[in-house]
Order: sequence, then structure tokens, then C-alpha cells
Amino acid sequence: MAADLIRERAAALDAGDPLADLRDAFVVDDDGPLYVDGNSLGRLPHATAERIKGLVDEWGARLVTAWPDWIEAPSRIGDQLAEHVLGARPGEVLACDSVTVNLYKLAGAVLDAEPGPLVALADDFPTDRYVLEGLAAQQGVELRLVRREELREASRDARLTAVSKIDYRSGEIVSEDEVEGLVLWDLSHAAGAIEIDLADAQLAVGCTYKYLNGGPGAPAFLYVREDLQTRLTSPIQGWFGQREQFEMGPRYEPAPGIDRFLAGTPPILSLVAVQSGVELTAEATMAAIAEKTRRLTDLFVELHDAWLAPLGFTLASPRDAATRGGHVSLAHPHGWQVCRALVERANVVPDFRRPDLVRFGFPALYTRFEDVFEAARRTKQLVELGAHREMDAAPARVT
Amino acid sequence: MAADLIRERAAALDAGDPLADLRDAFVVDDDGPLYVDGNSLGRLPHATAERIKGLVDEWGARLVTAWPDWIEAPSRIGDQLAEHVLGARPGEVLACDSVTVNLYKLAGAVLDAEPGPLVALADDFPTDRYVLEGLAAQQGVELRLVRREELREASRDARLTAVSKIDYRSGEIVSEDEVEGLVLWDLSHAAGAIEIDLADAQLAVGCTYKYLNGGPGAPAFLYVREDLQTRLTSPIQGWFGQREQFEMGPRYEPAPGIDRFLAGTPPILSLVAVQSGVELTAEATMAAIAEKTRRLTDLFVELHDAWLAPLGFTLASPRDAATRGGHVSLAHPHGWQVCRALVERANVVPDFRRPDLVRFGFPALYTRFEDVFEAARRTKQLVELGAHREMDAAPARVT
Repeated sequence: MAADLIRERAAALDAGDPLADLRDAFVVDDDGPLYVDGNSLGRLPHATAERIKGLVDEWGARLVTAWPDWIEAPSRIGDQLAEHVLGARPGEVLACDSVTVNLYKLAGAVLDAEPGPLVALADDFPTDRYVLEGLAAQQGVELRLVRREELREASRDARLTAVSKIDYRSGEIVSEDEVEGLVLWDLSHAAGAIEIDLADAQLAVGCTYKYLNGGPGAPAFLYVREDLQTRLTSPIQGWFGQREQFEMGPRYEPAPGIDRFLAGTPPILSLVAVQSGVELTAEATMAAIAEKTRRLTDLFVELHDAWLAPLGFTLASPRDAATRGGHVSLAHPHGWQVCRALVERANVVPDFRRPDLVRFGFPALYTRFEDVFEAARRTKQLVELGAHREMDAAPARVT
Repeated sequence: MAADLIRERAAALDAGDPLADLRDAFVVDDDGPLYVDGNSLGRLPHATAERIKGLVDEWGARLVTAWPDWIEAPSRIGDQLAEHVLGARPGEVLACDSVTVNLYKLAGAVLDAEPGPLVALADDFPTDRYVLEGLAAQQGVELRLVRREELREASRDARLTAVSKIDYRSGEIVSEDEVEGLVLWDLSHAAGAIEIDLADAQLAVGCTYKYLNGGPGAPAFLYVREDLQTRLTSPIQGWFGQREQFEMGPRYEPAPGIDRFLAGTPPILSLVAVQSGVELTAEATMAAIAEKTRRLTDLFVELHDAWLAPLGFTLASPRDAATRGGHVSLAHPHGWQVCRALVERANVVPDFRRPDLVRFGFPALYTRFEDVFEAARRTKQLVELGAHREMDAAPARVT
């Protein structure tokens, strides 16, 4: 395909993009790197910088007297996530802790209520597998690590199956039909990228620092369907999950609703930073974001086929946009070197996942079709020139 | 005592205070409330406001490429806490998660290694008791909640005793001699208020948002003595505690050192905010802070005896400064109303703890002897006028 024609098409798509203006809501240096790693860490919304400054000023001026406002942040932001991102109801979501700790709380609560075997995908994101591995050892239950095609049958007999909604490497969506029984969904790569409807789901956790632009290490979220809340108790019995927290009573008595899954004092600076990103998502609507995500990734897949496949790349993500999240992974025999060369020689920032995947993320809120074109064009040019051959092989420790 | 004479003495003490200038390192509105609740939430250091702005800018500009710096924050700040606040060695402290989650990780690790009975004080801070209560139920071990005078004997037969170094109500220091066996110290009210030497201690957790001025809900810390680290494994097996995190290998293998007690991605905004507060403490030195703390609280006790005891107050903190932390609690039959009247009528901000305690906190980094005088004077005046009688009784839920 002639690059000029594609570039024109990309420009036309940008001109017709109903979300195009939202890019201006983010800090973007147009002379800076071409950033295609928003699936790892989202961009900074201008409103977030303002909000954080306001919060810091509030700390300085109001000190402890501001706590009655701050203390509502986990459920306030949780409700916003529920309504605008997750298809859940008010009182079913909290913003708190990390994905890891939230996985532990929910899976631990399920096992405390009734022990039984756990199931996870053998190639799921590490923290999901590690958390379950630890819980299984503590509780003396089996953890079955299975392949995707074994998931449905294995989940049928499990006490709990934990599975990522979108695979962190391939970007492939796992559908509800692939898993049965009680399921704990990890929505880390899904929240803010695809439309989610938790109405029929029981348990979920997820991340806010990727497509939701909450900031580095921003607090995660957890979801417990309302009718399950009183049947589960967090294994981490903290004072923020206590029914009458400031009674400071003699025994732990879990709060009646979702608050029982809070643990300790929430990190307010990082927590309020989440809010502006969620509000931008709400403004765009998840329907529009998901539609644009499909079109952005479709364009990249098309350019892969035309330009990159002949250079040794293989599409490691679904070809069908309906089963794909917000990133596209390309395998290459020298994937690590390609990724390094993109950063160091082509001013493109994707990321790398072992063994040989270069991940290109295209968050719809601020990614232009032109960026997709540029990412593919620069990758093509770089590999044609052999610039990746000058890079060192992958070190033992890849960050 | 004549108020004028005391005020002169307080002014003289301030004039001779070697830490006096450090007050200027904090945001203080001299026309604002008289803040004596730094034991609950410390003040905002000017340097922290700058540091947070810098971090937000770094997020916006460097995005994911800044992670190699950020990822060191838990151990970097941990090492600063170890050296300047805790009397621990490098590689023994992490800044991470909340006190609640850290208590859970360390107490859980001890029980996973070898189950056995737990001991705690029946009137210790709620989250400490609740976390142990939950762990005891999960592991099928006994939790003995004991009185202070029973602690030593009970701890002798315990697998683990968890105890606050400073009582959150009375401000009384619990000495090493009062507890035996394996001890998990909660240093929340001690860190930054008194000198701590963890050289002989085994396990500890604590809070950075009180005397260390880390900000609302700032990440907590945990300490594991070096020789114990390889014998304990966190029950929350997260990817940040994994030996080679980005290998993303099939099985959890804990990192060799203190990093094994990390769980998920740390909230970087809230975490870096901790650093400036710790640096101010380092500048002052804990020896000077502890000395000033004793003199500040001595003055308040003296003024209590002279002015407040005749008005129905009772000293609920130790009279001996050597066994006292940074706050002084006064019991009063109408403690709640006195506390509310101080806030609403006298522009003083202490806090209240059930059933009848008004807590006055005097963090040495920014509290003047004049502030101690003023807090006592306004309390005296208010109760003499009967202003507290106009306040409502304590509501069911006190925040």
C-alpha cells in the first residue's frame, strides 16, 4: 500500500472522529515520542493535574477536617466506575488498594466462605496466578492452571475461576461463554478499552492506570455483585471495612455493603487522581471509545498485513476486532531488539512482553489514526533499515 | 498560674528552640485554626507540594519510561525511614500499602511459617485487633486479647504478639520489657514522635501520615529484620514481590530480600509525597524531635494541672515524659462537646476518641510552645464560659 494514500485515509478518519477533541484534554507533547503504551500507563489528563494541585492545597489548608470528604472517595469513584465503565450498579464497586490486594481479598473471601479448587489460565497475568497459588497453598486446596481450551470444563468443577477479561499479551477477549461457575474477572486490560456489562457477573477487579488514565500505580477497583456482598467477608479485616469504623468496638463486624471490602486508610492523593480520568471516559462514553478502539486496531492490523508481515512480524492478536481489546501485539524473532530500536531510534514507545512480543496500545481517548499509521510506518522503516540489529539482546531482567 | 507569665515562658522556649525554623518548611496559615491534630494527619511540607507537582509533570512528560525510577520508591523511602526514623538497616524497610495490609502480610507470614496462638491488647487500635481476629479465624488459632498487665506473660506462650508502641488513646509508650517472644510492633503513633531503635526488634509496621507528614492516607511502612526475611513469605503473593518480576514466570518465587513483602503496583503519587516529610525529619534528627516532644507535652501537662484539672479534666496520658509519645489525652465527662466547641468556637482542632477523650497532638517539627499555651488557654476559657454545653451530644457515628 502506498504510504501517502494510507496517511490520507488516516487523516480523513481523524477528521471524522467524534472523540478527536478529547485528545486536548490530555498532556501531549506533539514533538515528543509517539506513545503507544497507554495500555501500560495512560496519559495525564490536564484536569488531573489541576485536581491533584487542589487536593494538595486542601490538605495544607483543611488538614484533618477534610477527611469527611476524602473518606467517601473509594465509593464515590467506585460508583462512577460502575455507571460509566463497568455496567454495574451503585454500591457494587470500590476504588481501593492494588489489583493484587483486591484479587486476594475477593478470592480469599470466597475460599473462607467455602473452600474448594481454584482454576486459572496457565498463561494469565502473573499476579493473578501468584495470588491464587498462595491462597491455594494456605487453604490446602488445588489450583488448576489450564489452557484456554480447557477453561470451560475446568471451571465447571471449581470453587472459583479467576480469569483476565483481556489477555495481557494477545489482547484477546475472553467471553462469558468460556467459563462457568463462580468467576472473578480481572478487567485490568479491559476497563476503559471495551464495553463491559457486569450485570450478570459476580466478582471483578481491575486497574485504573491503563485506559482509565489514573496515574502511576493508581488505586485499583473491585466489584462484588450486591447479592453476594453479605455472603462474603474480606480476609483482610481492616478498620475501614468495619461497620461503625469510629466506634472502634471490640470485635470486627463487617460493614453491611461494599465497604466491607475496604482495608486500611486509602491513599487519597493517588485516589482522587483517578476521578478525572473516569470523568473523561464518561464524557466520551464507552460505546464510542469501544467503537474507535476497534477502528484504530483494525487499521494497525491492516498495516501489519501490508507492511510488517513481509518483514518477519506475525500478528499475535485476534484478527476479528470484536474479540480484541485496545492493544495489538506483534511477534518478531527479534522482538526485544525491535522494541528497543523503536524507543531509541524511531521515537516510538511501545512495550515488550516475553518471549518475543512488541505490544502497541491504542487508547481511543487520545490516540489518532495518524498515530497508528506512524507507528506502523516507523516500525516498517526501522526493520527495513535493520536498525534493530544494532540493539543488544534482551537482558536477564527486562523491566 | 498567671497566663501572662506562662505566655512569656512559652515565648522564651520558642526563642531557644533549635527546631523553630522548621515550622517554615510547612504550610501554616497563622490566621487559621490552632492545629493540634498532627497525630492524626500531619501538615503539608512546602517541599511535598513541589515534589508532587514535579511527579505529576514527570508522569505527563515521561509516561511509562519513568517507571525504572518509580519502581525503586518503596525501598528508597524505606531505606530513608530505616536510617533516620526507625534505627533499622538498609534493606529492612519498605514504604508500601496501608498499615492494615502490612499487618496482615507480616502476621500472616508468621502463621503460614508455623501456626500458633496470637496475642494483642484488648484496647489496642482497632485495625490491629481486627486483622489478627481475621487471621486467627482463618488459621484456626487462638487470639488472646489481654490487658496491659497481662501482656508479658501472655506473650511468652504466643506464636506472635502484635502491639502498638504508643497507645492511640493515652499516648503511653509500651516498652520492650513488657512483651516477650516474637513481636510485631505497630509504630503508627511512634514513628516521627519518639526515638526508635529496631536493631533488636523482629517485625514492625507503621504509618507515615501522622508525625512523618506523608499526606492523607499516605502509604505505610513495614520492617522485617534481615535474618527473618528468608524465613517468611507474604500471604499476598503479588508480582511486585516476585524474584524476577518481569520474567513473569510460571510460579511465584519470592524476591530474596525485603521486596518479597511488596504486593501490587505501588501508588506512586502518594508514595513520593512521603519522601519530603521523611527528609525534614532527617534534617531535624529524631533525637532533637523527641527531646522537643517531651518538653512540649510537659508544658501541656503542667497547664492541665494548673488550669484544666479544676474544670473537670483528668490527665489520661502518662505524667512522665519518658513514657509518653507526641500527644496528650484529657478525659472530660463532656469530652465530645468540649472537642466540638474547641473546633467551632475556639478555632482549635484537636480530636476525640471514645468514650471521653480529647487528644491534643504536638508534633515537634511545627508546633510552637506558644501553641501549647494557646491550646490550654482556649480550652480553659471555653469550659469556664460553658461553651461546650451548647454542643450536641455525640452522634451515633463519630468521624
